[in-house]
Amino acid sequence: MPEGLRHLIDWHLIEDAIWWDRLEAARRFARDRRWTDRARGRSIVLLFFNPSLRTRTSMELAAVELGAHVSVLTVGQGTWSLEWRDGIRMEGAEAEHIQEAIGVLSRYYDAIGVRAFASMRDYELDRREVFLGRIVRASRVPIINLESAFWHPCQALGDAATLLDLFRGSVQGRRFLLTWAYHPRALPMAVPNSALLMAARLGMHVTVARPEGYALDPDVMALARRYAAEYGTEIRETDRFEEAFDGAEVVYAKAWGGRLAYTDPQAEAEGRARFQDWRVTEAHMARTREAFFLHCLPVRRNVVVDDAVLDGPRARHLLQAEYRLHAQKAILEWIWAL
Amino acid sequence: MPEGLRHLIDWHLIEDAIWWDRLEAARRFARDRRWTDRARGRSIVLLFFNPSLRTRTSMELAAVELGAHVSVLTVGQGTWSLEWRDGIRMEGAEAEHIQEAIGVLSRYYDAIGVRAFASMRDYELDRREVFLGRIVRASRVPIINLESAFWHPCQALGDAATLLDLFRGSVQGRRFLLTWAYHPRALPMAVPNSALLMAARLGMHVTVARPEGYALDPDVMALARRYAAEYGTEIRETDRFEEAFDGAEVVYAKAWGGRLAYTDPQAEAEGRARFQDWRVTEAHMARTREAFFLHCLPVRRNVVVDDAVLDGPRARHLLQAEYRLHAQKAILEWIWAL
Amino acid sequence: MPEGLRHLIDWHLIEDAIWWDRLEAARRFARDRRWTDRARGRSIVLLFFNPSLRTRTSMELAAVELGAHVSVLTVGQGTWSLEWRDGIRMEGAEAEHIQEAIGVLSRYYDAIGVRAFASMRDYELDRREVFLGRIVRASRVPIINLESAFWHPCQALGDAATLLDLFRGSVQGRRFLLTWAYHPRALPMAVPNSALLMAARLGMHVTVARPEGYALDPDVMALARRYAAEYGTEIRETDRFEEAFDGAEVVYAKAWGGRLAYTDPQAEAEGRARFQDWRVTEAHMARTREAFFLHCLPVRRNVVVDDAVLDGPRARHLLQAEYRLHAQKAILEWIWAL
Repeated sequence: MPEGLRHLIDWHLIEDAIWWDRLEAARRFARDRRWTDRARGRSIVLLFFNPSLRTRTSMELAAVELGAHVSVLTVGQGTWSLEWRDGIRMEGAEAEHIQEAIGVLSRYYDAIGVRAFASMRDYELDRREVFLGRIVRASRVPIINLESAFWHPCQALGDAATLLDLFRGSVQGRRFLLTWAYHPRALPMAVPNSALLMAARLGMHVTVARPEGYALDPDVMALARRYAAEYGTEIRETDRFEEAFDGAEVVYAKAWGGRLAYTDPQAEAEGRARFQDWRVTEAHMARTREAFFLHCLPVRRNVVVDDAVLDGPRARHLLQAEYRLHAQKAILEWIWAL
Repeated sequence: MPEGLRHLIDWHLIEDAIWWDRLEAARRFARDRRWTDRARGRSIVLLFFNPSLRTRTSMELAAVELGAHVSVLTVGQGTWSLEWRDGIRMEGAEAEHIQEAIGVLSRYYDAIGVRAFASMRDYELDRREVFLGRIVRASRVPIINLESAFWHPCQALGDAATLLDLFRGSVQGRRFLLTWAYHPRALPMAVPNSALLMAARLGMHVTVARPEGYALDPDVMALARRYAAEYGTEIRETDRFEEAFDGAEVVYAKAWGGRLAYTDPQAEAEGRARFQDWRVTEAHMARTREAFFLHCLPVRRNVVVDDAVLDGPRARHLLQAEYRLHAQKAILEWIWAL
Repeated sequence: MPEGLRHLIDWHLIEDAIWWDRLEAARRFARDRRWTDRARGRSIVLLFFNPSLRTRTSMELAAVELGAHVSVLTVGQGTWSLEWRDGIRMEGAEAEHIQEAIGVLSRYYDAIGVRAFASMRDYELDRREVFLGRIVRASRVPIINLESAFWHPCQALGDAATLLDLFRGSVQGRRFLLTWAYHPRALPMAVPNSALLMAARLGMHVTVARPEGYALDPDVMALARRYAAEYGTEIRETDRFEEAFDGAEVVYAKAWGGRLAYTDPQAEAEGRARFQDWRVTEAHMARTREAFFLHCLPVRRNVVVDDAVLDGPRARHLLQAEYRLHAQKAILEWIWAL
């Protein structure tokens, strides 16, 4: 964290006391949604390099309901396209450099939210968060990660608060299934990475179910195990989809591309097509211990999960989405020390 | 209206007392545009599936001037594309379903405005408002129709308030000409449908002038006649453009595609080209009883209506557009029971 | 100025007393950025025909921090495309005419900001500001030029305030170098035009360095000389890039296309390619009297100016961008007579 600014890149970079405190704050905001003026006189700009529905609207409202002003920019739609590589002779389509764009915005606004998905081309670039890091370096104000190459902390805090709500305040020792699901495209890993660490940090037993070749990054798995070690809980990996549901109390489904998506996208696509039955159905849910179903959304119905599950009695994906709003208020409260 | 929510799909679905009360409210807001804080703590999201200028800005200001927060989303521009059909395996371009998108937004916001034009492909789908109905079904909060397949209630209330303003409070028995006009494209019928019912409900004599093949939906015509029956006023249809102007006190011009546009678009286009002289000129206006000229806008100059009319002394289309703002405040006041 | 409205097209159309007063106001706003409610109950719409980052965000915040509401429209993205020529039969892609679009907006909002770049096709049209003039003519409320074909007054006021800040309140007799720089595209002349007049009006010695064929408009140069005559300062032109830096105290770099870009774009492009060494480097800066480096942004790094200059100790382009915000508050304060 340069200059002592409260950037939020991911929770695993932030000490325990703050994580638990923000989780408590998210639940407090869920209990009382009344607008206040606590952030009056402050402003935040949300910079989207990729589409959004929940993040854009829930972050907008989070700021507004605290009394702040929010601007939303979709990069390349009404704004200039942005270069981020250093030392380059800028003769291409990009008319402006991140260094200036963020430099200027961080003089206008009191915080900058950034959504910039994984490149899906350069694994090291994504894993090391080079792009978001470049933005942090150019900024004078806190940066909030609205989903980057590898992390989605707004989602993770909202998810954690949802779980505490669903299990009345304590999830320790509960069984959390993070399961890969089929999707027509190879998606980034930000959500599963952050979800895995979130569940582990809450002291849940975690099973990561994914086909051969779709293992999450070893460093992320190792970090999850470190969290689990504090509780004595288990972090399991399996490539057996059906069995993974047995005994689960939470099913968190998500599609993502494996490392092969970076090195040989065509082979990955052909391989992925073989896993179209990694789709959550009522039959799968019936194997669980009446598990709640969660998904970060957007979700492709009857591809990732069946209508019957999404429209069924254990689906909590809309509540989960609602918690984004409360969680993001907790984040703004922290970065601005309200 | 599921769950007793105050959705606004069209005024013909809403009882008389509320219609007249909202019309009075629109005129009250026109007399006093001062901002208030009456809707502070409330928020609305405007979801545009189609372009907008007036609706987007006037609804934004209507909310803001009442103290509410407003977000504007243009579907597919910075947001995900949305599927609305049920039971589908979502493998196409649409990454999210209406059920989730609206489900989430209706947990964040206190109302949702939706603009979704007619499909111009499936007449029954459009006539039955299947798409907007799907949105209503997914929502926990009031839906405001910002122009759907068949109806444009925000326009209609603004139009009605404009007419009362122009005729100093009473329009009963005045002669309202709703005339078809040529346009290079086959446009939806939402505006003429709502305008017809509005004028009939105000107790005006209505003439609908349109070429052979461009009759409005029979059910809509029948409903207009039912309104007229209460006043003993007349609802006439004619395919004689020139004569239709004789004695008119209001000329309301609008282009729309006929039913043939759904079943055989090419034949419709070829046929329509023969009606390029359905263009309102000064000569037409001279046949009227000094009629006011209205148009919902946007209007194609010298295609739908001549410059001389739009820039002439009886044009009131800008005042009419202004009334959108006042009318929409009246609508928000109602749906939120302020 | 029709109807006594306080339009801001360019400062050279506005009397001295107001220019100096607004410059003082911009510096006052820079010293105290606290939000107020002075413009509560007012609203402004920003209408962008071209991309923007700084203007859009700084004007948005300027309005908000004064208590006003602001809407942002990007023409053709979610709105209708707009026709502006008079007397035309509108059968093309443009669904609406400026006359109606501005007519309506000026009934909703208390001011309209417009960004509409030079056509780069019709020099007389651009020089005479025909497009912006058409908008002014259609409006009932003040128009603020957010960069038009020939002028960028928001930039100029911010620039002037920046200079006064950098030189502690007095810049009379200081040496201002406005230098052309290479760029892959032939850009408009709004920024150099306004910057030249601004520096001359502040009483600075101005050197305009540009290659043969890139002279600014003779009327603009003549007006600059008229300002200079009041101070006895000098307005020089040169096509010698290196020497131009000698003794400069401010280097203001900007790319622009010459008149040839209008009459023979291909010849202009081929000619321009020969001037790729018109790029500000540390070696150039070393020839100055420790000049501050300014640029209106966006800037193409290592094309217009080297990284070493932009990241060096004399660069003030971010401060300059910050002053846009303060200047625009001063502009809003004036047009609304707050």
